Parts: sequence; C-alpha cells; structure tokens
Amino acid sequence: MSIRPVTAADHPALWEMLEPVFSAGDTYAIDPAIPRDAALAYWCSGNHRAFIAEGPLFLEKISSGGGAEGAGGQTAPLTLLGSYYICPNQQGGGAHVCNCGFVTAPQARGRGIARAMLNHALDTARAMGFRAMQFNFVVETNTRAIAIWQSHGFAVVGRLPGAFRHPTQGYIDALVMYRNL
Amino acid sequence: MSIRPVTAADHPALWEMLEPVFSAGDTYAIDPAIPRDAALAYWCSGNHRAFIAEGPLFLEKISSGGGAEGAGGQTAPLTLLGSYYICPNQQGGGAHVCNCGFVTAPQARGRGIARAMLNHALDTARAMGFRAMQFNFVVETNTRAIAIWQSHGFAVVGRLPGAFRHPTQGYIDALVMYRNL
Repeated sequence: MSIRPVTAADHPALWEMLEPVFSAGDTYAIDPAIPRDAALAYWCSGNHRAFIAEGPLFLEKISSGGGAEGAGGQTAPLTLLGSYYICPNQQGGGAHVCNCGFVTAPQARGRGIARAMLNHALDTARAMGFRAMQFNFVVETNTRAIAIWQSHGFAVVGRLPGAFRHPTQGYIDALVMYRNL
Repeated sequence: MSIRPVTAADHPALWEMLEPVFSAGDTYAIDPAIPRDAALAYWCSGNHRAFIAEGPLFLEKISSGGGAEGAGGQTAPLTLLGSYYICPNQQGGGAHVCNCGFVTAPQARGRGIARAMLNHALDTARAMGFRAMQFNFVVETNTRAIAIWQSHGFAVVGRLPGAFRHPTQGYIDALVMYRNL
C-alpha cells in the first residue's frame, strides 16, 4: 500500500468511495445528498490537501505472489483503499492546529488502512509545521474510529450533547478529540 | 438600540468595527491581516446571516432628550454599536446546531450590547429552527465574553489545550461552549 497526493485522475474512484459514506449520513456532518462535485471540492479543494491510500485490494495476492503480483503471475490492479485530507482547523492564532478527515473503502476495512493513513497524516502535519491535530466532530457511535484515534494519542477534550442527528439513533453526542504533535 | 439585518450600506461602518478586532488577533482565530472584502464576506456571506445593533452612541442623549433626541433638540446620529452573525455550525446530521460570532464597537462596551445581541441571536436561532447554539473557539483570556455566555446558559463542553496563539500570552486554551435552545 502506498499513500500519495490525490490527483484529478483519482476523482471518479474517490467519489465512489466518498458517496456511500456521505449518503449514509451516520459519521460525517455533511448533507447526505451532497452532489459529486461539491463532495470532491469539499474533500480536495480550498485549504484541504488530500491524499489517497492505494494498493491491491486482496492481501493474499500480495503474500502469495510477492509485491502486487498474484499467484497466477498477473499484477493485481491497484485500488483506492482510503483517503484523507488535512487542513488548518482555524486561521490566525489557531492556524497551528490542523484538522483531518478520513475515509476507508468499505471492502478494505479491517486491514489497518485507517491507522496507516493516520500515521501518514501525523507525519504530514509535522512536516507542514502544525503543532496539534484536532477532530471537531467525531460521532459517538463511530466507536471504531474513536478507538483508533485514542490508541494513537488522541484525547477526548470535548463532548457536544445531542449535536448529531443520527439517521436511526436520533440525537446523539459528538466528541472533540485532540493531540499534540 | 435596534437590531436589524446588515445591508451593503452598513459595510463601511461594519469594517470599521471588525478591523480593530481582527487585527488585534487576541479573540478571533482569523488572520489579523485579513483584507476588508474577505472580512466582510466572512462575516456576512455564504451561510452566515449577519445583524447589526445600532443606536445613539451616547446614552445621555437618550435619557436627556427622550428617544434619540438630544437635549439641544438635535437627533443623535445612529451609530453601529455591534454586530453578530448566525450560521449552521455543521451540515447534514449537525445542521440543527448553530454558531454565532459577536463583535461590539469598542466605544460602546459596557452597555449591555453583547447581551442584547445574544438574546436576539437566541431568538433568531429558535425562529430558524435550530435546537442548540455552539461556540467553537472562545479564547480563554476573553473572560468578559465567557462570563456573558455562561450567564446566558452556555456551558463549557470542551477545552482545546494550547489551541490559540495569543499575540502576547503565547499558546493558551480555547473553550468550546454550548447550550440547548
């Protein structure tokens, strides 16, 4: 798996990955009906720098054939496994703290991709001169993400009561998470 | 004092009020060198709805002459005393929580203008259908604002350690404050 900056050529595959996450409406505070171009602009444009994680989709192809080559000698096609963006969380006196958003392809879950992207993001943040990373709105039911953030040094520094309307669970809390770099 | 929506005719006076607050860089996490048009766009455009509080600058003119009429029979000119904006704090599942920003003209401080604007904002928020109001980034040294928010039902629900670089005090905390409507 490699992690590299998003290019325009990635947009179709990136949208294919973002669309089900946004339309589910259970983790991101984004309009579930957000159109493709607006979603890609949100993820990649303005002061956001976006990256993708790509690799062969099936691990066995890596282990059996060496590298990205399958057992039958064919090269496994590279697939978009995940993406993240990084941006300043505030301007002016708050510009030393960054924010990130992460998404993992549904078919690639459980393979440590979110962790790999987070480590990449922490390195990128340090290289960009940020001193801390803040997640503004982690939905409390997103326990998988919360566990990953906590195991990587993030503390819950705030709880927003009822700030998220979950599509099936109603009004639930969102967490603010933070770590120094 | 009356509170009404901002119009383009207010922009010169509004900028005159915003500029010293932003350029001081000690309360808002905004580039202290933000240009006029960008500052006005930030305050009034996009999904922000902006209001101004206006009235005669000197209270004695109200009490001595009745209404806005001075003791000499002349009408005291209306002055911009403060401004606030209101916007959704998040989209999608977070769109029922609003955010506001407030600024009071330096020469009009201590007259309850921030409180009057806050009450107006709380009413506006309810009328717009919001269920809660959140301040994302209240610099901990802004004790005057914190006291006003707390006396109007806001709780500190988060503390961002060192998230604000104060121009004279270095890295200090910012608070997340929240109240239901």
